[in-house]
Amino acid sequence: MSSKPQDSTWLDQVKWNSDGLVAAIAQDAASGRVLMMAWMNQESLLLSIASGDAVYWSRSRSKLWRKGESSGHVQKIHSMSLDCDGDALLLQVEQIGGIACHTGRQSCFYRQLQERDWQSTEAVLKDPATMYKSVDQ
Amino acid sequence: MSSKPQDSTWLDQVKWNSDGLVAAIAQDAASGRVLMMAWMNQESLLLSIASGDAVYWSRSRSKLWRKGESSGHVQKIHSMSLDCDGDALLLQVEQIGGIACHTGRQSCFYRQLQERDWQSTEAVLKDPATMYKSVDQ
Repeated sequence: MSSKPQDSTWLDQVKWNSDGLVAAIAQDAASGRVLMMAWMNQESLLLSIASGDAVYWSRSRSKLWRKGESSGHVQKIHSMSLDCDGDALLLQVEQIGGIACHTGRQSCFYRQLQERDWQSTEAVLKDPATMYKSVDQ
Repeated sequence: MSSKPQDSTWLDQVKWNSDGLVAAIAQDAASGRVLMMAWMNQESLLLSIASGDAVYWSRSRSKLWRKGESSGHVQKIHSMSLDCDGDALLLQVEQIGGIACHTGRQSCFYRQLQERDWQSTEAVLKDPATMYKSVDQ
């Protein structure tokens, strides 16, 4: 499932970086809120398409990151778009549980620059301590 | 203006990659449309904040990229947010001219994966040949 498919012209149009990764932005398909940015390698992209759920590549843990595997905060992919130069993907997703961030917030972009400081502008919806069965973001 | 400011705690919270860059996503503040993803170095981030207009770092040209300098398609920054691990910025912008992409489209994410191919889902609003006074994206 994760090996290169026969008809892979579309896959060859993705411009992988020197680490074999492409940036992937997840946007809430309903609200338009940008939830997070992560990375995919070829395997995680193929798994995402095959399963319909976002699978990223965790650079910090050097392993596949099945988003929500532990927390339940899966991202159901509605559509996927590639940018003009092929080095970024945009995923329209349904964010199960309404929480994308490992801090328990809706979006990872919860710190806004105000008066020369990153001010938290978003409430924690769920205590991260209760969110995970094991290490997962 | 582009040297490191005295009060730079907020700047130190940005997690620059090994090339000294941070990913920057531009989102249309009015429509919510994700327009593009580019990169900023410290200088371009400081210039963006000082001017109020998005300034990126062009990796292909290894120089500051004052978005819209040639095309007029400037991005007026409404707000800027940092993600939880500090390696991505989200800019809410007013896209002057309604065109972010060098192909003449509103968004750079105009190719959607459909039936194993990236299908263009967005009209060209302006002929790129008429868009630039010189090389600029």
